[in-house]
Amino acid sequence: MNVESFFSEHIKTALKNDPPGAWMPNLPEGCIRLSSGYPDPALVPAAEIKKAVATLVNEEHDLPLHYIGSPRIEGLQQQILKRLAERGMNVLDSELLITSGACQAIDLIARIFLDENAVVAVESPTYMEALEIFQNYTKQIIAIPVDDQGLRTDQLEEVLAERKREGLPLPRILYTIPTFQNPTGTTMAAERRKHLIELSEEFDFLILEDDAYGELSFNENPVPLKAIDKGGRVLHVGSLSKVVAPGMRIGWIAGASEFITALSWFKKDLDHPFAQSTMAVYLENTDLEKRLIILKDVYSAKCATLIRSLEQSLPESVSWYVPEGGYFVWVKIPGVDTSLLLTQALSEGVSYVPGKYFFLDQKDGAEFLRLSFSYADEKEIVEGIRKLGELVGY
Amino acid sequence: MNVESFFSEHIKTALKNDPPGAWMPNLPEGCIRLSSGYPDPALVPAAEIKKAVATLVNEEHDLPLHYIGSPRIEGLQQQILKRLAERGMNVLDSELLITSGACQAIDLIARIFLDENAVVAVESPTYMEALEIFQNYTKQIIAIPVDDQGLRTDQLEEVLAERKREGLPLPRILYTIPTFQNPTGTTMAAERRKHLIELSEEFDFLILEDDAYGELSFNENPVPLKAIDKGGRVLHVGSLSKVVAPGMRIGWIAGASEFITALSWFKKDLDHPFAQSTMAVYLENTDLEKRLIILKDVYSAKCATLIRSLEQSLPESVSWYVPEGGYFVWVKIPGVDTSLLLTQALSEGVSYVPGKYFFLDQKDGAEFLRLSFSYADEKEIVEGIRKLGELVGY
Repeated sequence: MNVESFFSEHIKTALKNDPPGAWMPNLPEGCIRLSSGYPDPALVPAAEIKKAVATLVNEEHDLPLHYIGSPRIEGLQQQILKRLAERGMNVLDSELLITSGACQAIDLIARIFLDENAVVAVESPTYMEALEIFQNYTKQIIAIPVDDQGLRTDQLEEVLAERKREGLPLPRILYTIPTFQNPTGTTMAAERRKHLIELSEEFDFLILEDDAYGELSFNENPVPLKAIDKGGRVLHVGSLSKVVAPGMRIGWIAGASEFITALSWFKKDLDHPFAQSTMAVYLENTDLEKRLIILKDVYSAKCATLIRSLEQSLPESVSWYVPEGGYFVWVKIPGVDTSLLLTQALSEGVSYVPGKYFFLDQKDGAEFLRLSFSYADEKEIVEGIRKLGELVGY
Repeated sequence: MNVESFFSEHIKTALKNDPPGAWMPNLPEGCIRLSSGYPDPALVPAAEIKKAVATLVNEEHDLPLHYIGSPRIEGLQQQILKRLAERGMNVLDSELLITSGACQAIDLIARIFLDENAVVAVESPTYMEALEIFQNYTKQIIAIPVDDQGLRTDQLEEVLAERKREGLPLPRILYTIPTFQNPTGTTMAAERRKHLIELSEEFDFLILEDDAYGELSFNENPVPLKAIDKGGRVLHVGSLSKVVAPGMRIGWIAGASEFITALSWFKKDLDHPFAQSTMAVYLENTDLEKRLIILKDVYSAKCATLIRSLEQSLPESVSWYVPEGGYFVWVKIPGVDTSLLLTQALSEGVSYVPGKYFFLDQKDGAEFLRLSFSYADEKEIVEGIRKLGELVGY
């Protein structure tokens, strides 16, 4: 049997890429995880989820365990719509699709808008999972730099104008994480957000706004692109993974109803009644505003500890962005190949994600690395950065 | 904004099909559900699932609520492998992929093997969700009849031989539900199973074996195709939806490791840690063999009641297959359009699925309907068939 002969042509092409998850290091026992974009273990509401399941089963018995059944699935939809409205996004029922986390949302959007003839624009660097997803569909990916004010919309405009002049195809979608970006931690400035929306109208593309970290500001939450989008060009992807628990796999897409209809058409894992109705009960019994204040306190303290540790333990030449929210700090160590350094770091008992995985052209990321302050505790953060400092050689 | 201009070409084609879920009637309050392929409410282990969550959270705290974490996700994989082995399917760790139910499994297989140039062969009639999925990828679908002994492999052979002679492309995949088929309830005879495997070698195609009902025999369980497959051509899709609870969304694909690697590459909803580790705890504490005996007793009694009711309440001209397992009875009412009859049936308070949705050419299904004996209780079954009999006019 010739295994290859069965794959579709575009699948054969995609299978030539690096295998997925290559960025995820195998961690030795007891390793300090500065690689993991996981929530703080103490902030994961495990006891409350247990209680939510008990309430659900006591009240509804078998209902949440059938394909359709629990009225709370509809309740979850309404709770998410209400939360979006509180954040300035007035989304109708027909404009929301609940997904299994943000990743499925991004994959579904790629599935209906991208093929080998489509162009997609991404930030550089960007979320490695999203890059993996887009590379499953097309080789035509344009990377636009990010700085301390987020996406360089001026450079995007130049690229678009040049492509238009030269008759090259324009991107169908631009993928951005405007708020507390993964991996840089930076946030797109308000005037750039406005500029980006204008460009989407002028050059006729859609914006995939990945807002997974949007509510995790240490100060005030920036206004999402979706909230200033008048033309229906923003597909807003959100998730409860970072503010509640990733293991529940609850995310969503909010966008124009014609797009939501098409997206739901190709979502073939059906609903997740048990997970969705459990999350609905959890949200019914949770003051999310209060919870977010606690999350912000914890994460801003941990972020401050990480930044302080970097200042103390790393040479002058090393630089980073100071984030105002989210989970990540993006570090540049000039002259060091962070992929090679990782082997040593792991043997010393500290992990991070090498920068190369966040770039379309991996060479661009050689001197960078992503640190996460979300999962490790403050003592571990200090210790982890000390180990890293020793390796880099202060 | 021209919404259509953003969709990929093959998505535009697929969007011209009937919208998904058209077969699911909107049920009036109190309707007797002979349409729903749901498990019996009393057999859904809601209390045990609640207990499993409590055990899980007490023992592992936040672990099952992170992206990766609970060692029980690996445990679930091993439990499924063990169960497959007990049924004669010796599958390695690298040959199994856990999915969100059978539907996601079928969609993933379509995603990597099908495109608009690929041919897929299906049974006629077949599972409407699978038909919807395949139609999302290709228009080239060949339908081969099913009779009381399952797929007509003799007719399949004729079609394949003819296509070969004429230089037409051969199917890349044949989709079959060999055991207690949806919708006919019939089971593929042992010699036809052997014949089908031989044909897959001779004409170089893969077999997608949908075994969702395979363990729900009233007598002995037929041997799965995967258990007699020597060449690695069978992709065996299974699910815990029918034997435990569909709302948990746990299914799998067992197949050659090269295929499993490629399939996992394109599965972008990540794992479902909470649902998967809950199911692992549930299975740890459940004697599945014992449970299956109870399920068989309940479902065979309900099936017998349905058949008896059909005999008593419907005219001589009406015919059906008597199933030996599964959830469904397939009924033919000569001269009646079952789509039109449904409106009356619903207003009388009984539901079923019109036959047309199970056929590629919907006209072929006009006189058929699918009844499910799994969800309604015995009193409802008797009452529902009585109502149906009155409408058909005994």
